[in-house]
Amino acid sequence: MAKQGRTTRERIIEIGANIIHKQGFNNTGIKEILDAAGVPKGSFYFHFKNKEDFGLQVVEHYGVVFRATAQNTLADTSVAPVQRIHNLLTEFRQFFGQQGFSLGCPVGNLAQELGDLNPALRERLNQALTGFVELFAEQLKEAQARGELAPDLDPRETARFIVSSWHGALIHMKVVKNSAPLDIFEKMVFDQLLAQ
Amino acid sequence: MAKQGRTTRERIIEIGANIIHKQGFNNTGIKEILDAAGVPKGSFYFHFKNKEDFGLQVVEHYGVVFRATAQNTLADTSVAPVQRIHNLLTEFRQFFGQQGFSLGCPVGNLAQELGDLNPALRERLNQALTGFVELFAEQLKEAQARGELAPDLDPRETARFIVSSWHGALIHMKVVKNSAPLDIFEKMVFDQLLAQ
Repeated sequence: MAKQGRTTRERIIEIGANIIHKQGFNNTGIKEILDAAGVPKGSFYFHFKNKEDFGLQVVEHYGVVFRATAQNTLADTSVAPVQRIHNLLTEFRQFFGQQGFSLGCPVGNLAQELGDLNPALRERLNQALTGFVELFAEQLKEAQARGELAPDLDPRETARFIVSSWHGALIHMKVVKNSAPLDIFEKMVFDQLLAQ
Repeated sequence: MAKQGRTTRERIIEIGANIIHKQGFNNTGIKEILDAAGVPKGSFYFHFKNKEDFGLQVVEHYGVVFRATAQNTLADTSVAPVQRIHNLLTEFRQFFGQQGFSLGCPVGNLAQELGDLNPALRERLNQALTGFVELFAEQLKEAQARGELAPDLDPRETARFIVSSWHGALIHMKVVKNSAPLDIFEKMVFDQLLAQ
Protein backbone atom coordinates (compact mmCIF):
# COMPACT_ATOMS: atom_id res chain seq x y z
CA MET A 1 0.00 0.00 0.00
CA ALA A 2 2.75 2.44 0.98
CA LYS A 3 4.78 1.38 -2.05
CA GLN A 4 1.79 1.74 -4.37
CA GLY A 5 1.16 5.21 -2.91
CA ARG A 6 4.77 6.21 -3.44
CA THR A 7 4.65 5.07 -7.04
CA THR A 8 1.53 7.06 -7.89
CA ARG A 9 2.95 10.13 -6.13
CA GLU A 10 6.21 9.83 -8.03
CA ARG A 11 4.40 9.34 -11.34
CA ILE A 12 2.35 12.51 -10.78
CA ILE A 13 5.52 14.44 -9.91
CA GLU A 14 7.50 13.18 -12.91
CA ILE A 15 4.71 13.82 -15.42
CA GLY A 16 3.87 17.20 -13.86
CA ALA A 17 7.56 18.17 -13.83
CA ASN A 18 7.83 17.48 -17.56
CA ILE A 19 4.71 19.51 -18.40
CA ILE A 20 5.81 22.43 -16.18
CA HIS A 21 9.30 22.32 -17.76
CA LYS A 22 7.68 22.77 -21.19
CA GLN A 23 5.06 25.41 -20.46
CA GLY A 24 5.61 26.96 -17.00
CA PHE A 25 3.98 26.63 -13.58
CA ASN A 26 1.16 29.17 -13.75
CA ASN A 27 0.38 28.06 -17.29
CA THR A 28 -0.22 24.45 -16.16
CA GLY A 29 -3.42 23.34 -14.50
CA ILE A 30 -3.72 20.46 -12.04
CA LYS A 31 -6.36 18.87 -14.30
CA GLU A 32 -3.88 18.79 -17.20
CA ILE A 33 -1.36 16.93 -15.03
CA LEU A 34 -3.97 14.48 -13.75
CA ASP A 35 -5.21 13.76 -17.28
CA ALA A 36 -1.64 13.13 -18.47
CA ALA A 37 -0.91 10.90 -15.46
CA GLY A 38 -4.28 9.14 -15.73
CA VAL A 39 -5.11 9.59 -12.05
CA PRO A 40 -8.27 11.00 -10.45
CA LYS A 41 -8.41 14.35 -8.66
CA GLY A 42 -8.74 12.69 -5.26
CA SER A 43 -5.40 10.96 -5.76
CA PHE A 44 -3.68 14.32 -6.30
CA TYR A 45 -5.08 15.76 -3.08
CA PHE A 46 -4.22 12.56 -1.20
CA HIS A 47 -0.56 13.18 -2.05
CA PHE A 48 -0.36 16.99 -2.21
CA LYS A 49 -1.99 19.68 -0.09
CA ASN A 50 -2.38 22.07 -3.03
CA LYS A 51 -0.62 23.24 -6.19
CA GLU A 52 2.09 25.09 -4.19
CA ASP A 53 2.88 21.91 -2.22
CA PHE A 54 3.05 20.02 -5.53
CA GLY A 55 5.37 22.72 -6.95
CA LEU A 56 7.72 22.31 -3.97
CA GLN A 57 7.97 18.57 -4.68
CA VAL A 58 8.56 19.26 -8.36
CA VAL A 59 11.49 21.60 -7.58
CA GLU A 60 12.89 18.89 -5.27
CA HIS A 61 12.54 16.41 -8.15
CA TYR A 62 14.41 18.74 -10.57
CA GLY A 63 17.26 18.96 -8.05
CA VAL A 64 17.47 15.17 -7.70
CA VAL A 65 17.50 14.72 -11.51
CA PHE A 66 20.19 17.41 -11.94
CA ARG A 67 22.46 15.88 -9.29
CA ALA A 68 21.98 12.39 -10.75
CA THR A 69 22.88 13.71 -14.22
CA ALA A 70 25.87 15.72 -12.98
CA GLN A 71 27.26 13.10 -10.59
CA ASN A 72 29.29 10.91 -12.97
CA THR A 73 30.75 13.77 -14.98
CA LEU A 74 31.75 15.80 -11.91
CA ALA A 75 33.22 12.73 -10.19
CA ASP A 76 35.50 11.85 -13.11
CA THR A 77 38.90 12.38 -11.48
CA SER A 78 40.69 11.49 -14.73
CA VAL A 79 39.66 14.96 -15.91
CA ALA A 80 40.73 18.36 -14.45
CA PRO A 81 38.01 19.93 -12.26
CA VAL A 82 37.32 22.95 -14.51
CA GLN A 83 37.09 20.59 -17.48
CA ARG A 84 34.57 18.46 -15.56
CA ILE A 85 32.26 21.49 -15.33
CA HIS A 86 32.84 22.22 -19.01
CA ASN A 87 32.10 18.59 -19.93
CA LEU A 88 28.84 18.67 -17.97
CA LEU A 89 27.69 21.88 -19.67
CA THR A 90 28.66 20.42 -23.06
CA GLU A 91 26.45 17.39 -22.32
CA PHE A 92 23.59 19.74 -21.48
CA ARG A 93 24.20 21.78 -24.66
CA GLN A 94 23.96 18.57 -26.69
CA PHE A 95 20.74 17.63 -24.87
CA PHE A 96 19.20 21.03 -25.65
CA GLY A 97 20.26 20.65 -29.29
CA GLN A 98 18.30 17.38 -29.41
CA GLN A 99 15.30 19.29 -28.01
CA GLY A 100 15.42 21.94 -30.76
CA PHE A 101 17.04 24.44 -28.36
CA SER A 102 13.96 24.52 -26.18
CA LEU A 103 13.17 23.96 -22.49
CA GLY A 104 16.17 25.47 -20.67
CA CYS A 105 16.88 24.70 -17.02
CA PRO A 106 13.62 23.93 -15.18
CA VAL A 107 14.89 25.48 -11.94
CA GLY A 108 16.14 28.62 -13.70
CA ASN A 109 12.79 28.89 -15.50
CA LEU A 110 10.77 28.67 -12.29
CA ALA A 111 13.14 31.07 -10.51
CA GLN A 112 12.33 33.64 -13.21
CA GLU A 113 8.60 32.86 -13.21
CA LEU A 114 7.94 32.51 -9.48
CA GLY A 115 10.73 34.45 -7.71
CA ASP A 116 8.42 37.41 -7.12
CA LEU A 117 5.12 35.55 -6.90
CA ASN A 118 5.40 32.74 -4.36
CA PRO A 119 7.63 33.05 -1.24
CA ALA A 120 7.60 29.32 -0.40
CA LEU A 121 8.60 28.31 -3.93
CA ARG A 122 11.12 31.17 -4.09
CA GLU A 123 12.85 29.79 -0.99
CA ARG A 124 12.93 26.23 -2.38
CA LEU A 125 14.23 27.49 -5.74
CA ASN A 126 16.91 29.52 -3.95
CA GLN A 127 18.01 26.34 -2.12
CA ALA A 128 18.11 24.40 -5.40
CA LEU A 129 20.15 27.06 -7.22
CA THR A 130 22.53 27.39 -4.27
CA GLY A 131 22.95 23.62 -4.39
CA PHE A 132 23.99 23.80 -8.06
CA VAL A 133 26.39 26.64 -7.22
CA GLU A 134 27.94 24.61 -4.38
CA LEU A 135 28.49 21.61 -6.70
CA PHE A 136 30.49 23.83 -9.06
CA ALA A 137 32.24 25.69 -6.21
CA GLU A 138 33.66 22.38 -4.92
CA GLN A 139 35.21 21.72 -8.33
CA LEU A 140 36.64 25.25 -8.47
CA LYS A 141 38.13 24.90 -4.96
CA GLU A 142 39.85 21.72 -6.09
CA ALA A 143 41.07 23.53 -9.24
CA GLN A 144 42.49 26.34 -7.12
CA ALA A 145 44.24 23.89 -4.78
CA ARG A 146 45.81 22.28 -7.88
CA GLY A 147 46.94 25.71 -9.16
CA GLU A 148 44.55 25.47 -12.13
CA LEU A 149 42.41 28.51 -11.25
CA ALA A 150 43.59 32.09 -10.75
CA PRO A 151 43.96 32.74 -7.00
CA ASP A 152 42.02 36.02 -7.23
CA LEU A 153 38.83 34.23 -8.36
CA ASP A 154 36.61 33.33 -5.40
CA PRO A 155 35.38 29.77 -6.07
CA ARG A 156 31.85 30.35 -4.75
CA GLU A 157 31.40 33.68 -6.58
CA THR A 158 32.83 32.22 -9.77
CA ALA A 159 30.49 29.24 -9.46
CA ARG A 160 27.51 31.58 -8.98
CA PHE A 161 28.57 33.49 -12.08
CA ILE A 162 28.90 30.31 -14.15
CA VAL A 163 25.47 29.01 -13.11
CA SER A 164 23.68 32.35 -13.49
CA SER A 165 25.36 33.15 -16.82
CA TRP A 166 24.43 29.69 -18.07
CA HIS A 167 20.80 30.35 -17.13
CA GLY A 168 20.93 33.61 -19.09
CA ALA A 169 22.50 31.88 -22.10
CA LEU A 170 19.64 29.34 -21.97
CA ILE A 171 17.07 32.18 -22.10
CA HIS A 172 18.75 33.56 -25.21
CA MET A 173 18.97 30.05 -26.70
CA LYS A 174 15.19 29.72 -26.34
CA VAL A 175 14.52 32.70 -28.62
CA VAL A 176 17.53 32.43 -30.95
CA LYS A 177 16.80 28.69 -31.43
CA ASN A 178 20.39 27.72 -32.04
CA SER A 179 23.44 26.95 -29.89
CA ALA A 180 25.18 30.32 -30.40
CA PRO A 181 24.39 31.79 -26.94
CA LEU A 182 25.68 28.60 -25.28
CA ASP A 183 28.74 28.44 -27.56
CA ILE A 184 29.57 32.06 -26.69
CA PHE A 185 28.98 31.38 -22.98
CA GLU A 186 31.42 28.42 -23.06
CA LYS A 187 34.01 30.42 -24.98
CA MET A 188 33.84 33.43 -22.63
CA VAL A 189 33.81 31.38 -19.42
CA PHE A 190 36.24 28.57 -20.23
CA ASP A 191 38.58 30.17 -22.83
CA GLN A 192 38.69 33.63 -21.24
CA LEU A 193 37.55 33.95 -17.62
CA LEU A 194 38.84 30.61 -16.30
CA ALA A 195 41.88 30.38 -18.60
CA GLN A 196 45.01 31.06 -16.61
CA MET B 1 -10.17 60.98 -33.04
CA ALA B 2 -6.90 59.49 -34.23
CA LYS B 3 -5.06 61.17 -31.35
CA GLN B 4 -7.63 60.02 -28.78
CA GLY B 5 -7.33 56.48 -30.18
CA ARG B 6 -3.57 56.58 -29.92
CA THR B 7 -3.73 57.73 -26.31
CA THR B 8 -6.09 54.95 -25.21
CA ARG B 9 -4.00 52.39 -27.09
CA GLU B 10 -0.80 53.62 -25.44
CA ARG B 11 -2.41 53.61 -22.00
CA ILE B 12 -3.53 50.00 -22.42
CA ILE B 13 -0.02 49.01 -23.56
CA GLU B 14 1.75 50.84 -20.70
CA ILE B 15 -0.54 49.46 -18.00
CA GLY B 16 -0.49 45.96 -19.51
CA ALA B 17 3.30 46.08 -19.84
CA ASN B 18 3.64 46.86 -16.12
CA ILE B 19 1.30 44.03 -15.07
CA ILE B 20 3.01 41.53 -17.40
CA HIS B 21 6.43 42.64 -16.10
CA LYS B 22 5.28 41.79 -12.55
CA GLN B 23 3.46 38.51 -13.11
CA GLY B 24 4.16 37.14 -16.59
CA PHE B 25 2.24 36.96 -19.88
CA ASN B 26 0.26 33.72 -19.53
CA ASN B 27 -0.51 34.60 -15.92
CA THR B 28 -2.18 37.89 -16.94
CA GLY B 29 -5.71 38.03 -18.35
CA ILE B 30 -6.97 40.68 -20.76
CA LYS B 31 -9.77 41.46 -18.29
CA GLU B 32 -7.19 42.30 -15.59
CA ILE B 33 -5.49 44.77 -17.93
CA LEU B 34 -8.78 46.35 -18.98
CA ASP B 35 -9.89 46.73 -15.35
CA ALA B 36 -6.57 48.38 -14.45
CA ALA B 37 -6.75 50.69 -17.48
CA GLY B 38 -10.43 51.42 -16.93
CA VAL B 39 -11.39 50.69 -20.53
CA PRO B 40 -14.14 48.42 -21.90
CA LYS B 41 -13.47 45.14 -23.72
CA GLY B 42 -14.52 46.60 -27.06
CA SER B 43 -11.77 49.21 -26.79
CA PHE B 44 -9.13 46.49 -26.42
CA TYR B 45 -10.32 44.65 -29.53
CA PHE B 46 -10.55 47.94 -31.43
CA HIS B 47 -6.80 48.40 -30.89
CA PHE B 48 -5.52 44.81 -30.79
CA LYS B 49 -6.48 41.73 -32.80
CA ASN B 50 -5.95 39.38 -29.87
CA LYS B 51 -3.68 38.79 -26.88
CA GLU B 52 -0.74 37.78 -29.09
CA ASP B 53 -1.02 41.01 -31.08
CA PHE B 54 -1.14 42.91 -27.78
CA GLY B 55 1.95 41.02 -26.57
CA LEU B 56 3.85 42.03 -29.71
CA GLN B 57 3.09 45.70 -28.99
CA VAL B 58 4.13 45.25 -25.36
CA VAL B 59 7.52 43.83 -26.40
CA GLU B 60 7.92 46.78 -28.79
CA HIS B 61 7.11 49.10 -25.87
CA TYR B 62 9.74 47.44 -23.62
CA GLY B 63 12.34 47.99 -26.36
CA VAL B 64 11.44 51.67 -26.67
CA VAL B 65 11.64 52.17 -22.88
CA PHE B 66 15.00 50.36 -22.68
CA ARG B 67 16.53 52.43 -25.47
CA ALA B 68 15.20 55.68 -23.94
CA THR B 69 16.69 54.68 -20.56
CA ALA B 70 20.02 53.61 -22.06
CA GLN B 71 20.44 56.47 -24.51
CA ASN B 72 21.93 59.19 -22.29
CA THR B 73 24.30 56.87 -20.43
CA LEU B 74 25.58 55.17 -23.59
CA ALA B 75 25.97 58.52 -25.40
CA ASP B 76 28.15 60.03 -22.65
CA THR B 77 31.41 60.47 -24.54
CA SER B 78 33.14 61.87 -21.45
CA VAL B 79 33.22 58.25 -20.22
CA ALA B 80 35.09 55.31 -21.80
CA PRO B 81 32.76 52.98 -23.79
CA VAL B 82 33.14 49.92 -21.52
CA GLN B 83 32.47 52.17 -18.52
CA ARG B 84 29.30 53.48 -20.22
CA ILE B 85 27.94 49.91 -20.30
CA HIS B 86 29.00 49.42 -16.68
CA ASN B 87 27.34 52.69 -15.66
CA LEU B 88 24.08 51.67 -17.37
CA LEU B 89 24.02 48.30 -15.61
CA THR B 90 24.81 50.01 -12.30
CA GLU B 91 21.79 52.28 -12.82
CA PHE B 92 19.64 49.21 -13.46
CA ARG B 93 21.07 47.47 -10.35
CA GLN B 94 20.08 50.50 -8.27
CA PHE B 95 16.59 50.46 -9.81
CA PHE B 96 16.15 46.77 -8.95
CA GLY B 97 17.33 47.47 -5.41
CA GLN B 98 14.55 50.06 -5.09
CA GLN B 99 12.11 47.36 -6.29
CA GLY B 100 13.18 44.88 -3.58
CA PHE B 101 15.26 42.92 -6.13
CA SER B 102 12.17 41.94 -8.07
CA LEU B 103 10.96 42.21 -11.69
CA GLY B 104 14.11 41.60 -13.73
CA CYS B 105 14.29 42.51 -17.43
CA PRO B 106 10.81 42.29 -19.01
CA VAL B 107 12.22 41.12 -22.36
CA GLY B 108 14.42 38.48 -20.72
CA ASN B 109 11.44 37.31 -18.67
CA LEU B 110 9.20 36.91 -21.72
CA ALA B 111 12.00 35.24 -23.70
CA GLN B 112 12.15 32.60 -20.97
CA GLU B 113 8.39 32.29 -20.67
CA LEU B 114 7.37 32.38 -24.34
CA GLY B 115 10.44 31.29 -26.34
CA ASP B 116 9.02 27.80 -26.78
CA LEU B 117 5.32 28.65 -26.73
CA ASN B 118 4.60 31.39 -29.26
CA PRO B 119 6.58 31.67 -32.54
CA ALA B 120 5.43 35.24 -33.33
CA LEU B 121 6.38 36.53 -29.88
CA ARG B 122 9.60 34.50 -29.94
CA GLU B 123 10.63 36.27 -33.16
CA ARG B 124 9.80 39.72 -31.75
CA LEU B 125 11.67 38.93 -28.50
CA ASN B 126 14.65 37.72 -30.52
CA GLN B 127 14.68 41.05 -32.40
CA ALA B 128 14.47 43.00 -29.12
CA LEU B 129 17.31 41.04 -27.50
CA THR B 130 19.45 41.35 -30.62
CA GLY B 131 18.79 45.10 -30.49
CA PHE B 132 20.13 45.27 -26.92
CA VAL B 133 23.17 43.20 -27.96
CA GLU B 134 23.84 45.56 -30.90
CA LEU B 135 23.70 48.61 -28.60
CA PHE B 136 26.42 47.08 -26.43
CA ALA B 137 28.40 45.76 -29.43
CA GLU B 138 28.70 49.31 -30.79
CA GLN B 139 30.27 50.43 -27.50
CA LEU B 140 32.66 47.46 -27.52
CA LYS B 141 33.70 48.15 -31.13
CA GLU B 142 34.52 51.70 -30.10
CA ALA B 143 36.46 50.36 -27.08
CA GLN B 144 38.45 48.03 -29.33
CA ALA B 145 39.24 50.85 -31.78
CA ARG B 146 40.53 52.86 -28.79
CA GLY B 147 42.66 49.92 -27.65
CA GLU B 148 40.57 49.51 -24.50
CA LEU B 149 39.31 46.00 -25.23
CA ALA B 150 41.43 42.89 -25.85
CA PRO B 151 41.66 42.32 -29.62
CA ASP B 152 40.75 38.63 -29.28
CA LEU B 153 37.28 39.46 -27.88
CA ASP B 154 34.69 39.65 -30.65
CA PRO B 155 32.54 42.75 -29.87
CA ARG B 156 29.23 41.16 -30.90
CA GLU B 157 29.90 37.87 -29.08
CA THR B 158 31.09 39.72 -26.00
CA ALA B 159 27.98 41.92 -26.09
CA ARG B 160 25.76 38.81 -26.36
CA PHE B 161 27.57 37.31 -23.37
CA ILE B 162 27.14 40.49 -21.30
CA VAL B 163 23.41 40.74 -22.06
CA SER B 164 22.67 37.04 -21.57
CA SER B 165 24.78 36.79 -18.39
CA TRP B 166 23.00 39.85 -17.03
CA HIS B 167 19.65 38.18 -17.69
CA GLY B 168 20.85 35.12 -15.78
CA ALA B 169 22.08 37.25 -12.88
CA LEU B 170 18.62 38.88 -12.76
CA ILE B 171 16.99 35.44 -12.46
CA HIS B 172 19.24 34.62 -9.51
CA MET B 173 18.56 38.06 -8.00
CA LYS B 174 14.82 37.30 -8.07
CA VAL B 175 15.21 34.28 -5.77
CA VAL B 176 18.20 35.41 -3.68
CA LYS B 177 16.48 38.81 -3.11
CA ASN B 178 19.67 40.75 -2.78
CA SER B 179 22.20 42.33 -5.14
CA ALA B 180 24.87 39.59 -4.80
CA PRO B 181 24.25 37.92 -8.21
CA LEU B 182 24.44 41.33 -9.93
CA ASP B 183 27.52 42.38 -7.90
CA ILE B 184 29.26 39.13 -8.87
CA PHE B 185 28.21 39.57 -12.52
CA GLU B 186 29.71 43.10 -12.60
CA LYS B 187 32.91 41.93 -10.91
CA MET B 188 33.42 38.97 -13.28
CA VAL B 189 32.56 40.89 -16.45
CA PHE B 190 34.15 44.28 -15.80
CA ASP B 191 37.04 43.46 -13.41
CA GLN B 192 37.98 40.15 -15.05
CA LEU B 193 36.70 39.46 -18.57
CA LEU B 194 36.90 43.02 -19.95
CA ALA B 195 39.90 44.12 -17.90
CA GLN B 196 42.94 44.34 -20.11
